[in-house]
Amino acid sequence: MTASTPSPSATGVCAPTGFAASATTAGIKPSGKPDMAVVVNQGPQANAAGVFTRNRVVAAPVTYSRAALADGQLRAVLFNSGNANACNGKQGLADTTAMAQRAAELLDLDPQQVAVCSTGLIGELLPMDVVLGGVEALNNLGADGHAAATAIMTTDTVAKEATAYREGWTMGAMGKGVGMMAPSLATMLVCITTDAVASPQALQGALEGASAVTFNTLDVDGSTSTNDTVIIMANGASGVEPSPEELNAAVLEVCASLADQMQADAEGVTKRVRISVEGTASDAQALNAARTIGRDNLFKCAMFGSDPNWGRVLAAVGMADAEMDPENISVYFNGAPVCVGSTGVPGARDVDLSGVDIDVRVDLGTGGPGQAFVRTTDLSHAYVEINSAYSS
Amino acid sequence: MTASTPSPSATGVCAPTGFAASATTAGIKPSGKPDMAVVVNQGPQANAAGVFTRNRVVAAPVTYSRAALADGQLRAVLFNSGNANACNGKQGLADTTAMAQRAAELLDLDPQQVAVCSTGLIGELLPMDVVLGGVEALNNLGADGHAAATAIMTTDTVAKEATAYREGWTMGAMGKGVGMMAPSLATMLVCITTDAVASPQALQGALEGASAVTFNTLDVDGSTSTNDTVIIMANGASGVEPSPEELNAAVLEVCASLADQMQADAEGVTKRVRISVEGTASDAQALNAARTIGRDNLFKCAMFGSDPNWGRVLAAVGMADAEMDPENISVYFNGAPVCVGSTGVPGARDVDLSGVDIDVRVDLGTGGPGQAFVRTTDLSHAYVEINSAYSS
Repeated sequence: MTASTPSPSATGVCAPTGFAASATTAGIKPSGKPDMAVVVNQGPQANAAGVFTRNRVVAAPVTYSRAALADGQLRAVLFNSGNANACNGKQGLADTTAMAQRAAELLDLDPQQVAVCSTGLIGELLPMDVVLGGVEALNNLGADGHAAATAIMTTDTVAKEATAYREGWTMGAMGKGVGMMAPSLATMLVCITTDAVASPQALQGALEGASAVTFNTLDVDGSTSTNDTVIIMANGASGVEPSPEELNAAVLEVCASLADQMQADAEGVTKRVRISVEGTASDAQALNAARTIGRDNLFKCAMFGSDPNWGRVLAAVGMADAEMDPENISVYFNGAPVCVGSTGVPGARDVDLSGVDIDVRVDLGTGGPGQAFVRTTDLSHAYVEINSAYSS
Repeated sequence: MTASTPSPSATGVCAPTGFAASATTAGIKPSGKPDMAVVVNQGPQANAAGVFTRNRVVAAPVTYSRAALADGQLRAVLFNSGNANACNGKQGLADTTAMAQRAAELLDLDPQQVAVCSTGLIGELLPMDVVLGGVEALNNLGADGHAAATAIMTTDTVAKEATAYREGWTMGAMGKGVGMMAPSLATMLVCITTDAVASPQALQGALEGASAVTFNTLDVDGSTSTNDTVIIMANGASGVEPSPEELNAAVLEVCASLADQMQADAEGVTKRVRISVEGTASDAQALNAARTIGRDNLFKCAMFGSDPNWGRVLAAVGMADAEMDPENISVYFNGAPVCVGSTGVPGARDVDLSGVDIDVRVDLGTGGPGQAFVRTTDLSHAYVEINSAYSS
């Protein structure tokens, strides 16, 4: 592939020095929209790390990329949208491998230096003639990170990019994800690039720390994808080695930005709901409780209706695996107490939830130190519409 | 209250000898529909048993009725719809107690012989003047079990009754429940009556056994109510003492009928979906896996769209707490294999799911003996509509 130097004005994955990208319309999507991209690390270093779905049913590209990342080294990430290459058996893994091999040939790399990310429909074999044609067409590297971010979209309505500028070094990122957002990542693909000097171990730690409080707090519909992948590559081109705190902060900044963008673009969303839980034994229990509320369809429908139906919060949280005092639970909507001591507050039904952002705070009343939050969305007609007519 | 003898043609809770019922429109519901009922056991015996929600946040009537049932004796069950009397603190329990006391006075009973069941909105105090007026109005007992079944409806569209006729004895039942159906009962209130001779222990065993394979296999939206209650009363008026097997079979028959009616009438349902899971280590794990699929909104939306998107089954089950071989999962839609060895079967997208009933069978591929099933529904526009405009 033809290498070029990213322009200083580049954003997203091409913002850091020494990263190039390319996008194309191979023809995988019936819609005829862009569907393949590649992000290439031009060095000098090839340190990398990744986090993947916790689903036990994983797509072939996850299996492949996990193995490719085992040595903490990557030179490129190849993406396709429109087909997840999941649940395709041995042929699926053979196809992913063929994609990596062809990209590696064109980039003069070893196939183990190339990760592969796929997103789209589960259970359909990749149209490999079209896909390999797309890999050829990607052989025109440039600095257009936005085009790459656009090519990985599925039901996303906007491309998602983030950039963190630091003294002497830069971090860029792109991501996609709108539905299936659940614990341990969303249905997301994320690629983060940086020209900082950072070891694979430092990158892995930063990525896990940031994911825990960003992507892993997003829970749109309780579903967890077979393909979730977040990869970070660091080439050291800036010559600057940030402290662990500086590195962690930059990774957190771009991950938080992408997570915000994903929540805002979640399928059929009309409300962004933040649920925080306190007053239970541990942070893990608080997270369980917050997730239980965030996944409750009756609660989510109430949010769609701007309905301060706090009874559904209590009904939902009563089933959570968390210590609570059932007689002493308090609920706040947008800061206003609506339920104190497990009893309704006069005027609770009049709390205004008509805005796009809704804050729900729940105190489980045990006095324990546990606290956590999740971000979710309402359950709307558009969610049903989008997800009942996806594959057919 | 005025006692009368049920007619031989009575169905539902009044079908067995020695049970009377009454219904009224007290004025709890803004709609002006019937909203209170009572079922009275006229003896000679007063044996009873019950099962209740597993939610830790329980409504006052659950607290009260559990205590009333502690001695295995009940003479009457008082119902109201339109208000769940849940999350109302000490006042809620005082109100439930006042309801039971007034009914007991009128029926010449001890308050501890009266159970109370409430269903409706959570977190609103009962309008006690209206409610106590309703208790007075119920003082006109007859044999119209159907009127009682109608008065306990909330968003139910049809009254739900069942009757099991046996040689010399009879069992009758009524129930309500359409949403919030989840593990450990649905949002259901059920009252079962029988003129058989049966001990409280025999009744309890029969009820728990039947609930496990009927109400507890219904999972419409993963939510669990604060008010779920199933009560059975046996008066021995027939003089016939069925064997444990005969008693269990009759209880199972009426519970299965009510569960079928509840599934068919679930909020916004356009599909009835049965999900069975096999090939895992234990029945409990199979149940976990079936529930995980049945609660997955992406799967439920696909069912609404009659879309044989089996990939969503695999993505959902991969997160279940159950032993599986991720490379050897098979899925059948209406008996047709759509995924074998975790790989799509040619033609899988053409399986016809346009009918109302959809059967989903999943083999987790370990060869283990565990198996279980749940019954659920699709996620439709009507579900969102009904549940986004409930309280406001």
